[in-house]
Amino acid sequence: MHDRPATGQAAMSTRPVRLSRIAEQMTASTIREILKVTQRPDIISFAGGLPAPELFPLEEVRAATGAVLDRYGPAALQYSTTEGHPPLRAWLGDRAGVPAQNVQIVSGSQQGLDLLGRVLLDPGDLVAVENPTYLGALQALRPYGARFVAVPTDDDGISPDGLDALLAEQPVRLLYAIPTFQNPTGRTLSRERREALLDVAERHDLLIIEDGPYSDLRFRGQAQPSLFELALARAGGDIESVRVISLGTFSKTLVPGLRDAWVLAPGAVIDKLVQAKQGADLHSPTLNQMIIAELVEEVLPRQIARVREAYGQRCAAMLAALAERSPAGVHWTRPEGGMFLWLTLPEGLDAEKLLISAVEAGVAFVPGASFFAAPGEGANTMRLSYVTVPEDRIRAGVGVLADLIDQRR
Amino acid sequence: MHDRPATGQAAMSTRPVRLSRIAEQMTASTIREILKVTQRPDIISFAGGLPAPELFPLEEVRAATGAVLDRYGPAALQYSTTEGHPPLRAWLGDRAGVPAQNVQIVSGSQQGLDLLGRVLLDPGDLVAVENPTYLGALQALRPYGARFVAVPTDDDGISPDGLDALLAEQPVRLLYAIPTFQNPTGRTLSRERREALLDVAERHDLLIIEDGPYSDLRFRGQAQPSLFELALARAGGDIESVRVISLGTFSKTLVPGLRDAWVLAPGAVIDKLVQAKQGADLHSPTLNQMIIAELVEEVLPRQIARVREAYGQRCAAMLAALAERSPAGVHWTRPEGGMFLWLTLPEGLDAEKLLISAVEAGVAFVPGASFFAAPGEGANTMRLSYVTVPEDRIRAGVGVLADLIDQRR
Repeated sequence: MHDRPATGQAAMSTRPVRLSRIAEQMTASTIREILKVTQRPDIISFAGGLPAPELFPLEEVRAATGAVLDRYGPAALQYSTTEGHPPLRAWLGDRAGVPAQNVQIVSGSQQGLDLLGRVLLDPGDLVAVENPTYLGALQALRPYGARFVAVPTDDDGISPDGLDALLAEQPVRLLYAIPTFQNPTGRTLSRERREALLDVAERHDLLIIEDGPYSDLRFRGQAQPSLFELALARAGGDIESVRVISLGTFSKTLVPGLRDAWVLAPGAVIDKLVQAKQGADLHSPTLNQMIIAELVEEVLPRQIARVREAYGQRCAAMLAALAERSPAGVHWTRPEGGMFLWLTLPEGLDAEKLLISAVEAGVAFVPGASFFAAPGEGANTMRLSYVTVPEDRIRAGVGVLADLIDQRR
Repeated sequence: MHDRPATGQAAMSTRPVRLSRIAEQMTASTIREILKVTQRPDIISFAGGLPAPELFPLEEVRAATGAVLDRYGPAALQYSTTEGHPPLRAWLGDRAGVPAQNVQIVSGSQQGLDLLGRVLLDPGDLVAVENPTYLGALQALRPYGARFVAVPTDDDGISPDGLDALLAEQPVRLLYAIPTFQNPTGRTLSRERREALLDVAERHDLLIIEDGPYSDLRFRGQAQPSLFELALARAGGDIESVRVISLGTFSKTLVPGLRDAWVLAPGAVIDKLVQAKQGADLHSPTLNQMIIAELVEEVLPRQIARVREAYGQRCAAMLAALAERSPAGVHWTRPEGGMFLWLTLPEGLDAEKLLISAVEAGVAFVPGASFFAAPGEGANTMRLSYVTVPEDRIRAGVGVLADLIDQRR
């Protein structure tokens, strides 16, 4: 026991609070800093990961809220089941061709990743990721002790042969992939590569988490089945023997601020996700799930068409501006959907240094290095989002970037 | 590499998905089973942990939603900051007498517990809990490897001397406590015990998580300051040297279905909570926080008064029914607020067995054993919630229970 001061009242401890080892390893996220920069209205920001708010179905959400409060009354504001609002699960199950009980509602795909990390990973487990990949996935899985290993990729995305070689060498627990309009590169895996990837995964009994936040947002080219759809077809429609877990979200098609997303998985995984989610937050907000369920039949298809058209035009404007200026030694991806384009500078040119000058000149983007699992890679790359910027400002912003790049050559 | 079948298409693996060790340790929760039983309309259920839905401010939520969509437009449906809606944080900070930056918005207190476990606990750490305690806290902290140790309690709640002795013997990392209208017992710690508890905590440099979901729901007796308030006063108002982390929620005063709650903590803990929440779900739903912020000034005080009155009447009805029937050898707590009453049967009488007969006779409650950290304790105890049952049905339900208990003597 420690000495007590004689004042009768013990002095407050001012020793720092002891944090967990997991907490000590956490660092402030780049996403977070990005969100701060994008909030300055004077900046032409290609840095955002946010969908375009002027396309949100605001009046439809207002009407849906009223309808839901009328129909369900206080039940819309009461605690509800951990698995999620039954009509929403049923609709999602129908759409995917799986039973409703294989659908778990989560608060954003981010929570899906967190809960999957919790139920699938032990400390030290190897998780294979595209290189670069969505950094929020790294942030979600790292607290469970995941170690990341890069899957070889080329201009067409994941290399199935590269994955095969990797799996032959190392005991990979799961693959996290965004096969369609990938974040950050905007790349989409071809049908042939998808089939080859599944062949490799089956041969090595590899579990895949397929993240598909942008898959509905194709604005050109031919639709590709998801890995989950292909695997479900191979399994004769029996999800219990499918080894692809699918993450989907309404954040990029309807609205992100309600935080409604879902996981499709075999029953054994769903059972554990339910238990994990009970400990994590009991359930996703009742009202929000009911609002989304109100919108899926009629508003969602209209909204997808609307977002596709707008993003397609903005992507085309950015591609045209880049082609027109075509800064020497720079190349970029040509997305067929989604929100992002990936730009590679000449070797030796540092995107983080470029960002400092760019922000001074009124333009923001995300340096690509932050999307790589290991430090030191991708210093000459950057992610550009075209979705929240009007076309004239896209042209102006690309002009500023091209000038800055040309000055540095 | 495994052999491939000659069909050209690889056969699907039907091996079970390998789950994490954390997942293997998870079990279906009793809360969950309780929620199922309470959904049967023919049952007089004292088993719920749900607030009374007929008291929800349904029209006020409807109006607030409209007002928020008018005022904020698409921003109400967009991604928002991890820390939470600034006006809501400011209001909560003002009310508690701490800066807004010491407030973290979470999706229900359950998420507060999960994130605190993540940033404060290492595997094997000892967490002291009241015995019995809120089982959701055990479920939230267990995945981080917490081991639980019971703090000696008596009819007046936690024994400060008992805690002192425990801390002298064992390296306890933190204490989790519900000092006011405790779940499941309905007990409230006296002012003297609160001060003595803080003395002990300061002497041992013990961190306390104070969970206060019911503190606003006092329907008789004298208000008690929270441990957090007392500690903040001792620290001269400087939260940075306070070692009590406070969890609060709107679930029991406004509505639970929006999932809005908060954590008050020193800056070093808030910084890590923000990083942990980014990985866990990016942020709590934007619209929901704005709706709550719209309600705190005028609706919340009215609502607290309304809930207090209704719960006070229902508690009085249950206490009167128990007193009238007073089954031999049975004793129970007399809550001054909150939602629960704790009943102890004669030694040797098993509440779980009693529940089977009770449900057959149309009455449900929660056997007390599920609220103890270690198995085997509290077999002769039960938790009764009075808040969702009309007074005549409370009398009828207590009558059924009293008959069943008397038959077993």
